[in-house]
Amino acid sequence: MTKENKLQIIPLGGLGEIGKNMTVIRYNNQILLVDAGLSFPDEEMPGIDLVIPDYTYLIENKELVLGILITHGHEDHIGALPYLLRDLNVPIYGTRLTLGLIQAKLSEAKLGHVVTHEIKPRESVKLGVFKVEFINGSHSIPGSIGLGIHTPLGTIVHTGDFKLDYTPVSGGILDVHKFSELGDKGVLCLLSDSTNVERPGFTRSERLVGQNIDEAFESAQGRVIFASFASNVNRLQQAITAAFKYHRKVAVVGRSMVNVVAIASELGYLNIPEGTLIEVDEIVNLRVNEVCILTTGSQGEPMSALTRMAMHDHRQISICAGDTVIISATPIPGNEKAVARNIDMLFKLGAKVIYESISGMHVSGHASQEELKLMLSMVKPKYFIPVHGEYRMLMKHAELAEQLGIPRENTFVAEIGSVIEFTHHGAKMADKVSSGRTLIDGLGVGDVGNIVLRDRKQLSQDGILIVVITLSGATGGILAGPDIVTRGFVYVRESEIMLNEIKEITRKTMVRCQQNGIREWAALKNQIRDVLSKHLYDKTKRRPMIIPILQEIK
Amino acid sequence: MTKENKLQIIPLGGLGEIGKNMTVIRYNNQILLVDAGLSFPDEEMPGIDLVIPDYTYLIENKELVLGILITHGHEDHIGALPYLLRDLNVPIYGTRLTLGLIQAKLSEAKLGHVVTHEIKPRESVKLGVFKVEFINGSHSIPGSIGLGIHTPLGTIVHTGDFKLDYTPVSGGILDVHKFSELGDKGVLCLLSDSTNVERPGFTRSERLVGQNIDEAFESAQGRVIFASFASNVNRLQQAITAAFKYHRKVAVVGRSMVNVVAIASELGYLNIPEGTLIEVDEIVNLRVNEVCILTTGSQGEPMSALTRMAMHDHRQISICAGDTVIISATPIPGNEKAVARNIDMLFKLGAKVIYESISGMHVSGHASQEELKLMLSMVKPKYFIPVHGEYRMLMKHAELAEQLGIPRENTFVAEIGSVIEFTHHGAKMADKVSSGRTLIDGLGVGDVGNIVLRDRKQLSQDGILIVVITLSGATGGILAGPDIVTRGFVYVRESEIMLNEIKEITRKTMVRCQQNGIREWAALKNQIRDVLSKHLYDKTKRRPMIIPILQEIK
Repeated sequence: MTKENKLQIIPLGGLGEIGKNMTVIRYNNQILLVDAGLSFPDEEMPGIDLVIPDYTYLIENKELVLGILITHGHEDHIGALPYLLRDLNVPIYGTRLTLGLIQAKLSEAKLGHVVTHEIKPRESVKLGVFKVEFINGSHSIPGSIGLGIHTPLGTIVHTGDFKLDYTPVSGGILDVHKFSELGDKGVLCLLSDSTNVERPGFTRSERLVGQNIDEAFESAQGRVIFASFASNVNRLQQAITAAFKYHRKVAVVGRSMVNVVAIASELGYLNIPEGTLIEVDEIVNLRVNEVCILTTGSQGEPMSALTRMAMHDHRQISICAGDTVIISATPIPGNEKAVARNIDMLFKLGAKVIYESISGMHVSGHASQEELKLMLSMVKPKYFIPVHGEYRMLMKHAELAEQLGIPRENTFVAEIGSVIEFTHHGAKMADKVSSGRTLIDGLGVGDVGNIVLRDRKQLSQDGILIVVITLSGATGGILAGPDIVTRGFVYVRESEIMLNEIKEITRKTMVRCQQNGIREWAALKNQIRDVLSKHLYDKTKRRPMIIPILQEIK
Repeated sequence: MTKENKLQIIPLGGLGEIGKNMTVIRYNNQILLVDAGLSFPDEEMPGIDLVIPDYTYLIENKELVLGILITHGHEDHIGALPYLLRDLNVPIYGTRLTLGLIQAKLSEAKLGHVVTHEIKPRESVKLGVFKVEFINGSHSIPGSIGLGIHTPLGTIVHTGDFKLDYTPVSGGILDVHKFSELGDKGVLCLLSDSTNVERPGFTRSERLVGQNIDEAFESAQGRVIFASFASNVNRLQQAITAAFKYHRKVAVVGRSMVNVVAIASELGYLNIPEGTLIEVDEIVNLRVNEVCILTTGSQGEPMSALTRMAMHDHRQISICAGDTVIISATPIPGNEKAVARNIDMLFKLGAKVIYESISGMHVSGHASQEELKLMLSMVKPKYFIPVHGEYRMLMKHAELAEQLGIPRENTFVAEIGSVIEFTHHGAKMADKVSSGRTLIDGLGVGDVGNIVLRDRKQLSQDGILIVVITLSGATGGILAGPDIVTRGFVYVRESEIMLNEIKEITRKTMVRCQQNGIREWAALKNQIRDVLSKHLYDKTKRRPMIIPILQEIK
């Protein structure tokens, strides 16, 4: 009896979250990876710079991996590559802009040797047992694609991040013909973007934003400062087009903005009329109504160019009265307060700020309910895996699919590490594989775990109180101290009485321990910690971290 | 020549922010205070429990204060009273529910002796030179009022928090007649709620929510868990009405919910049919479709009842499959992620969660643009001060007023501490008074300042590294240590090599200092801090707080 053929889909990221997308497609002993993204830390991860998927599974199966297919160049789809590729040397497949953005990352990470293959929509590639078709997409970054992955057990369709945009700014519309053709021939399983499943109706076209940008430029009297996601190349194009139309020169500010504008214009994704682009230090030579500044900071990030300009903390540019600031983005969940703070600061400086979503300065890059229904209807898969969404979104997407006739038991609302396994007999959830998140902090990859995070959170709440005592090895008596050092607990200069009390209590505790014959350091430290903890809570209702440190002189 | 009479309006809170409302109305040497609220800390204030206005100005003028007028019983209007009234013994004026909620607070704070005066809409009170009229309002808590404050220099109208609700659940509609009458007679200055000035159109009626609540109860199969703001008594009423209609008993969970239900039903604001209310431990005796649980936690607060139920961390109730959870609130800015996390957890437990704003389970308590225009048109003040809003909202409200014919120079977009001064000659901004925020942390009022907050933030980013050395007083040589203790920096068990390096580097630094004759402790500590800081950043790209501690044995 031969072993049964198995096709497995294993999400390693991007489910139960918006971010760090990574999906394994495995047929027997051959693996394709779709995307390798990062996510940004939330307030539960203080001090963390980035989060990437735990890809132990890939490392354990590294000789099986044939290649990495990248659907588009957003950080939540490419950001883990500089880490993953240290451990896994496989070729990358993506469109021109996607590879341009990846290559910039890889050369920075000294991974310039990695092999990349540029692909175009409607092309296909044979990788082991798989045949992969690339399908033109439509999203908030050019060069986005969907995937048709043909396997001996059937075809898998992965939408990538998508919306329908019948009037896109570039790149043509989503390839409804190809999705329909695949659906007509029969699709085993669809993986579809769930980001906007909570929104009824259709997502508006990028082109509508262009009209509003044009109007804003037309009526602006002073400088125009245009903040957006650097990767939203079509948005930048529309701002540049408006700037040119109204005789403004364009300066580019902010590291990622400079980076993307360089790559996108070199690769032909941005059309910047000759003489339009200027250096930032040339601004002073122009009248205010001849200036447009493209900048990062649409999310209120504290270190971003726009925030610095608003706080007069930018080396070259400060916002002033008469400026028009266009924030062409909506806050990503979690950034609402930071964005609002920036807007307030800009208003205080006398700028005109165009920011409300009702001003039509932003549209989403993700499909709303009606578009998701169209995708499900075109592809009409036997099985369905909602991806790219938090849990409630995946559930809602499953509900939507059920309304369109996909039986609930054929939809898998999966988690990171879930294995959805297909055989000739059908599909099921198999045992999970090891998965999770890996925290990046400075140079450390995965060395900050739950204990360190827990300590950081505790430190941030009530600070730390350190008690230092030097003991005599001979007698166990105190030779020096107790000395008290605190940080983040109380303002020391106003708390001398309390700190003296703490010294006295510590001294008494030590004496009592000595009288009771307690000399083990662990026991002494516990005693000090317990007594001080209770005392401080009674006095202040706070719980600083208490660290007793003993030293001994022989 | 006699001294000129002066009327001053001085906001001490609630401008440039949503929260801690407090406004001084001063005529020569007589002061009225409107509201005394708190706000909740943001992520820039780790460990802080509450924030109240810095009311130094009131303390400095305490013998001038005649009374405190409270517009309604929300925390951002009453929460500072337990602190303020320690230092200022003046009577409080408010409606029955407002006083009920205040009295609960004051007795907890052992301030039961404070004098309160219950007032009703259409009544008026004479306070020194002022005559105060109370005007029926409409908001997300019953007993909300606006104020007409007559002074020798003219009438000030303060809207309080308001919306128009032509079909309110209780309490009658906003008293458009009184506002119009005052406007007709002539109003010197209007202070109006700016919270929803960014929203076009009208805010929907509370009664619409009731219809949707009814439908949700009608179709629910298992238990209904209804989460809302405790203070939204009309919302609770609508849930209780639906529960009764569909033969469900109601249990109340969560400290503030229990508190408000008790006060509001005792004072006649909640109509709970006999036998409807049950204790939580009686739930087990009922079938699931006979149970409704009113609970706190609509904002995803980690310690709230709903969050605990979702995490199986509540003493009595856990959410399970078949439950219908209604979240009858929208997230306050900053709470979006916490609310979303809760919803995801509830879905994972198999509950049906009704949460989207599109499900019509919530309406705002604040006026949208068209209502704000109506208020401005009714009151037609000479001068206008937009209040209760972040800076951009105040600016937008000023713009709205200008469209309605109030000259821009007659509108004061003020800040906390601004003094808007009226005389017979007109109005102007005068010098600011001392103002700001006072942080409450445990029992400490104002003892946590910027230095402590800065330390807490730094500690939360990369943790702390403590270096302890005992020196010989005679020789300056090392008698014990260096010992290293870290928290929140690296996982210690996996970092032994690094920690040994740190010891070695510290030892060498001490030796070098000794050779160079450096013996002052401040200099020694600086040397250690500098050398270690550089080393750690090179090795890890992190910047833990480094605390060198020296002790000396004579």
